[in-house]
Amino acid sequence: MTSVKEKQIKILENGKVTTPKGFQAGGVHTGLRKTKLDFGWIHSEVPATAAGVYTLNAFKAAPLQVTKNSLDKTGKIQTLVVNSANANAVTGPQGEKNALETQKLVAEKKGVEVDHVAVASTGIIGVQLPMEKLYKGINWMDEAENQGAERFESAILTTDTVTKYAAVEVEIDGKLVTISGAAKGSGMIAPNMATMLSFITTDAAVERSSLEAGLRQVTDKSFNMITVDGDCSTNDMVLVLANGLQKNQTLNESHPDWDLFLNGLQYVSQDLAKQIAKDGEGATKLIEVQVKGAGTDKAAGEIAKAIISSNLVKAAVYGSDPNWGRIVCAVGYSEQPIEVDKVSIALGDLQVVENGLPIDFDEEAGTEYLQQEMVTIHVDLQNGAGEATAWGCDLTYDYVKINASYRT
Amino acid sequence: MTSVKEKQIKILENGKVTTPKGFQAGGVHTGLRKTKLDFGWIHSEVPATAAGVYTLNAFKAAPLQVTKNSLDKTGKIQTLVVNSANANAVTGPQGEKNALETQKLVAEKKGVEVDHVAVASTGIIGVQLPMEKLYKGINWMDEAENQGAERFESAILTTDTVTKYAAVEVEIDGKLVTISGAAKGSGMIAPNMATMLSFITTDAAVERSSLEAGLRQVTDKSFNMITVDGDCSTNDMVLVLANGLQKNQTLNESHPDWDLFLNGLQYVSQDLAKQIAKDGEGATKLIEVQVKGAGTDKAAGEIAKAIISSNLVKAAVYGSDPNWGRIVCAVGYSEQPIEVDKVSIALGDLQVVENGLPIDFDEEAGTEYLQQEMVTIHVDLQNGAGEATAWGCDLTYDYVKINASYRT
Repeated sequence: MTSVKEKQIKILENGKVTTPKGFQAGGVHTGLRKTKLDFGWIHSEVPATAAGVYTLNAFKAAPLQVTKNSLDKTGKIQTLVVNSANANAVTGPQGEKNALETQKLVAEKKGVEVDHVAVASTGIIGVQLPMEKLYKGINWMDEAENQGAERFESAILTTDTVTKYAAVEVEIDGKLVTISGAAKGSGMIAPNMATMLSFITTDAAVERSSLEAGLRQVTDKSFNMITVDGDCSTNDMVLVLANGLQKNQTLNESHPDWDLFLNGLQYVSQDLAKQIAKDGEGATKLIEVQVKGAGTDKAAGEIAKAIISSNLVKAAVYGSDPNWGRIVCAVGYSEQPIEVDKVSIALGDLQVVENGLPIDFDEEAGTEYLQQEMVTIHVDLQNGAGEATAWGCDLTYDYVKINASYRT
Repeated sequence: MTSVKEKQIKILENGKVTTPKGFQAGGVHTGLRKTKLDFGWIHSEVPATAAGVYTLNAFKAAPLQVTKNSLDKTGKIQTLVVNSANANAVTGPQGEKNALETQKLVAEKKGVEVDHVAVASTGIIGVQLPMEKLYKGINWMDEAENQGAERFESAILTTDTVTKYAAVEVEIDGKLVTISGAAKGSGMIAPNMATMLSFITTDAAVERSSLEAGLRQVTDKSFNMITVDGDCSTNDMVLVLANGLQKNQTLNESHPDWDLFLNGLQYVSQDLAKQIAKDGEGATKLIEVQVKGAGTDKAAGEIAKAIISSNLVKAAVYGSDPNWGRIVCAVGYSEQPIEVDKVSIALGDLQVVENGLPIDFDEEAGTEYLQQEMVTIHVDLQNGAGEATAWGCDLTYDYVKINASYRT
C-alpha cells in the first residue's frame, strides 16, 4: 500500500466522529480555558475494539500512561474524554492520581468499565489538573445541549485556529462502513501546548491485533510525517475506536477488503495530518515534500523529514524564494545513502536540479509557484523504489512572535 | 580531558593566525563580493604537518574534496587559500577543475608543492567560480599592502557581522608554543552561505596521526557542539597547520605535555565555536547548554544538542521566558536513556526542575537571567558520569527576515 486509492473510497465532506453508527460526542466549557470549550468526549454505544499510538518522548504525560495501561489490558475503549489547557504532564504521582480519578468518575457517569475509559490532556506542562473543573465537565456529559461532534472538535483545541476533521466511507462485505476522525495540534503557546491528538472512530468490526498493526502502519505515513518545529510532545496520542456496529465480517489482514479499509484509515489520517501541518503556528503555507527513488521507504522518509524540518527551507518558502541550494543541503545531511549525481529536484512542475547539477530555470516562475497556499517539493534520488511524503509549514515572523512572547 | 585547564594555558587576547612563528596571512578584494575582501590566504615558511575535519554532508564541495585528497596524500599544508561569496558546491566536474586549477596556480605563485596547497570556498551554491577573479587574487598574494591576519579574517567572511579569532600560548619542553585560529560561520543569506570554516595555526611540532586524532577529539567538543539552525553545510571544514618552528620534541600521545597541547587546541576551538554561535543569523544571545550525569559523554552530547536545536527553546530565550517545559520536552525526545524522575534543570543558578518535577521559583528572576547576553541552561540527569556542553543562539524575527528575503 503506497498510495491512497481514492476511487474505492468515498470522501464525506462533512463527516464527523459521530457519523459512524453508534458514536456520540460533545463538549463543554468548565473554566479550564477562559471562554472556549475545554472538555470533550466521544462515547460508543458498545465497547469498541481500539488501538493507540503514543509519543516516544521519555516524559510521557499521566493520562497517556493511564490510557495505555487500560487499553493494553482490555483492548477496548467505550468512552474517551479530553481536556484542553492543561497537559497533566511532568506532574508526578499526583498527576497520575488525577488521571485515574478522571477515568473512574467517567466510568461511573457513563456506566462503562473503568478500563474502557480513555483519558487525554493537552495544554500547560507541570501544573496539576484543577479537578473541580473536571468534575463539572463529567457531570455535564449527558445534557442535551452539550452534544455534538463540533463541540468535541472545539473542546480539544488549544491555540489551533481551526477545527480539524475528516471522514470516508468504504464498502466492506457489502456494508457501508464509515471511518471518521478529529484532531488538534500545532499550537504551543503557554509553556508547551505542543500536543498532537487524534481520535478516529469507525463502525467497522476489526480484529484488535490487525487494528493495532494497521494504525501503526498508517501513522507512519501520516501523523509521523508532519512537523511544525520538530518538537515531539509529552502528550501526543492517536486512538482509533472500531465499534463493529456495521456487522461486517471482522476485518483482519486476510480479509479481501483489508487493504480498502486501510486505505480509508490512511486517507483520514493523512487528511487530518495535513490539516495539522497547515494550521502550524504562524504558518501561511502547507508544504508537501515528495521523495522517490530512495533505497527504501524509510530512507525516503528520513530525507523528506530532513527537508520539511529545515528552518532554512521553511523560511525560503515563506519568502517565496526558489532556493534549491537549501533543499540540496538538507538531502545531503540527512545521513541517508544517496548518489549525489543522481539527485533531481523540482518545485511543483519546475525542475531546478537534474542529476545533481543545477539547471537554468525561470526564477520568476519559481517565486510565483511558491506564493501558493500549498507547495510541493519533489525529490527524485533515482536510486531505488523507496518513496515517502512529508508535510509541514513555512517559518514566519508570527512563529517567533507566538513562541517568544506567550505571556504578553 | 573533560575541561579546559586554563591555568596552564595563557590566553593571548590579540593573538592571530600569524602569531605562531613562521606564518603569514593576508587578504584582497577581487570582486567576488561588492566591496569587501573576498580572497584570503595563510602561508607557512615551511610545510606544516596538517589535519582536517570535513562536513558529513553527502554533497561535498569541490575545494573540500581537492584539499582532502592532497592532505591524505602528503599529510602537509604550506599554503591555504579561501574565497568567499562562492561555495563552488554542486558544480560538478567544472567545479572540481576550477578547484584543482586554483591549487596549481597558488603552488606556482608561492613556490610550494601542489599537494601542499589547501583550497576552501564559502558562499553561493550551484554557481561556477568566476576564475578571472581568483587569478587576480593569486597574483596579488605577495604584495606588501595585502598582508595581515586581520585581512585574512575579513576575507573569509560572508554574512558574519564580526571577525572571529582566538589564540593561546602553552609551554612544551620549555618552548613557548602558540596555537591560534580564525573562523567564519553562521551567515547564510544568498542561497546557502551556511559554511563553517576554521583555520588553526601552531608553531609546535606534532606527529601527523596525533594531530589528526587530537583535532577530531577537540572538534567533537567544540565545532561539532554548536548549532545555529541545525543545517550542516556542503563546505564545512576545519584545518590545523603545525609547522614545528618552535623545535619542541615532536608531540604525540606519549609526550608528557600532550594533554596540555590538546587543552590549548580545545580552548582555541571552543572559543572560535562560541564566537560562531554568538554571531548566528539574527542572534541576540549566546546560549550554552551544560548536560551532566548522563550514561556517557555521547548521550550527554545528544541531549545538549536536542535542547540547543529546539526552535521552541531558542524562541523562549529570545523572549526571556523561563519556559522550562520546552527544555524538559527536548530532553524527553532526545532518544537517549534517561530516568525522568531524576532529571534536574537550572537556568544559571535558578533551579526550575528537580528530580523530574517542577519546583516553585521566582519567575521574575528567571526572566531577568534570560535577558543577559549569555545564558546557561544546566541539565543534571543524575544517572552517570557523562557530560557535554553545546552552544547556540536564540531564534529571532531577524533570523526569519534574513532567510526569507535574501534577494531584497
